Amino acid sequence: MTTYTHDTVPTRFVETQGIRFAYRRFGKTGGVPIVMNIHFRGTMDHWDPAVTDGLARQREVILFDNAGIGASSGETPANVPAMATNAIAFIEALGIGKADILGYSIGGKVAQEIAVQAPDLVRKLILMGTGPRGADTTASKSGAIFSAIYDPPEHLWIAAHFLPSPTGRAAGLKYLERKHRRHDRSPEVSEASAVAQLQAIVQSNEQTNGVLDYLGGIHHPVLVVDGSNDLIIPTINGFTLQQHLPNAQLIIYPDSSHAPFYQYPELFLAHAALFLDA
Amino acid sequence: MTTYTHDTVPTRFVETQGIRFAYRRFGKTGGVPIVMNIHFRGTMDHWDPAVTDGLARQREVILFDNAGIGASSGETPANVPAMATNAIAFIEALGIGKADILGYSIGGKVAQEIAVQAPDLVRKLILMGTGPRGADTTASKSGAIFSAIYDPPEHLWIAAHFLPSPTGRAAGLKYLERKHRRHDRSPEVSEASAVAQLQAIVQSNEQTNGVLDYLGGIHHPVLVVDGSNDLIIPTINGFTLQQHLPNAQLIIYPDSSHAPFYQYPELFLAHAALFLDA
Repeated sequence: MTTYTHDTVPTRFVETQGIRFAYRRFGKTGGVPIVMNIHFRGTMDHWDPAVTDGLARQREVILFDNAGIGASSGETPANVPAMATNAIAFIEALGIGKADILGYSIGGKVAQEIAVQAPDLVRKLILMGTGPRGADTTASKSGAIFSAIYDPPEHLWIAAHFLPSPTGRAAGLKYLERKHRRHDRSPEVSEASAVAQLQAIVQSNEQTNGVLDYLGGIHHPVLVVDGSNDLIIPTINGFTLQQHLPNAQLIIYPDSSHAPFYQYPELFLAHAALFLDA
Repeated sequence: MTTYTHDTVPTRFVETQGIRFAYRRFGKTGGVPIVMNIHFRGTMDHWDPAVTDGLARQREVILFDNAGIGASSGETPANVPAMATNAIAFIEALGIGKADILGYSIGGKVAQEIAVQAPDLVRKLILMGTGPRGADTTASKSGAIFSAIYDPPEHLWIAAHFLPSPTGRAAGLKYLERKHRRHDRSPEVSEASAVAQLQAIVQSNEQTNGVLDYLGGIHHPVLVVDGSNDLIIPTINGFTLQQHLPNAQLIIYPDSSHAPFYQYPELFLAHAALFLDA
């Protein structure tokens, strides 16, 4: 049997609820797989192979494009719970009864809603660079970062994921190099889908009375991971998640922004393995 | 050569600056030793053998009673920086040129001041259940916990270290059992020394303008560790430490109070090894 990696695993498709989901599945089979939920404007090809291949050493990794994203058909919903409903349909269509769910940024919001809607489907959650419903985005630089012009354009992801420092830039360039090794890529996220994602984020972050109460109902073990200075979803939101989830561990990495797991992949992988294999 | 453990290592003494320091030294030699600074009303015998023996598998562990504490002579100073000066004198008297410093609670405050006063003596810091100068103690239950009566008296340490829940109590009882395996113990902290420690804590927590600025000058790698609901030094202080130290990782453990490393010793040891051996 061929052992696939992030770079070599073929894209496959599964159809359910009228949506044809594009996905890739690789790594060590036989245990609980981990399903990865990507960030705003992200497809399967925005993950860092250092992280996905690292996770795949010990478990099966499933990357996918949610509805209306990348190589998947369907429409991107303008609210996070509907994205979670689609993700659940996708996971169940694969015949998976129990999964670990990793969510990054808006993907972390989707991951939380998956746990709310389908608690029995979820074993453990990893929430990376994200926040709860009603997140405090006062200090976010997201607007400026996503509206700026970059040359080359993919340097947007250095600005969105890393600190504007020599260390951050160096880590960002290495990440881009790893990420672009693969050539047959999912189409980038359409403007229509990006607009829907933005609407979903704005709605999700509305600060209403008791907005955090749902966190008390997520009883799964959760690993919350943040950079020390997350410029997209401010770091305080990771602390808020940890404080309101009944069973959450928080790890904050030094000198990092939105993507500490791309900056310290080996340390993250060790921490993730300790958490997932406990 | 005999391999000593927490329970069997003999107490030794070293004299410097007119103080006769009691200490114990065990574990794997040849690397950078770790010097452990204990909490309010604590002696060498208040550490959890699960943690000290665990650390000793990979490095030399040095426990000591600071001036005026336990089996050491001298007077306990009424301010934290003077405690650090004494700790530095002790470490240097052992002929150690570079050490990792672990500090728990007031010991974490001492550890920070050691790094301030003798930066070249310190390789890395682990700060457990502690806070910065000017710590926010608004939510602390320390007064009520330390003034209550316990039967047996050592159950004070269940209340001081663990949450008042079945899980916390069970972890506390196991900790006490491990801790009391050793019979030749340092004398408990005198009332005079406890009063001096309290004065030091109050002075250290005064909230003045720029009180956190010193953290910017501690450039060592730091691992900050907290329980999710530290009843003695509220958890927000760990977040504050992480946010103001230039090179700090923060780990917060779920469902725990002041002593998460006694509640989750194996996980803490794995995290500490990843940090110390990086």
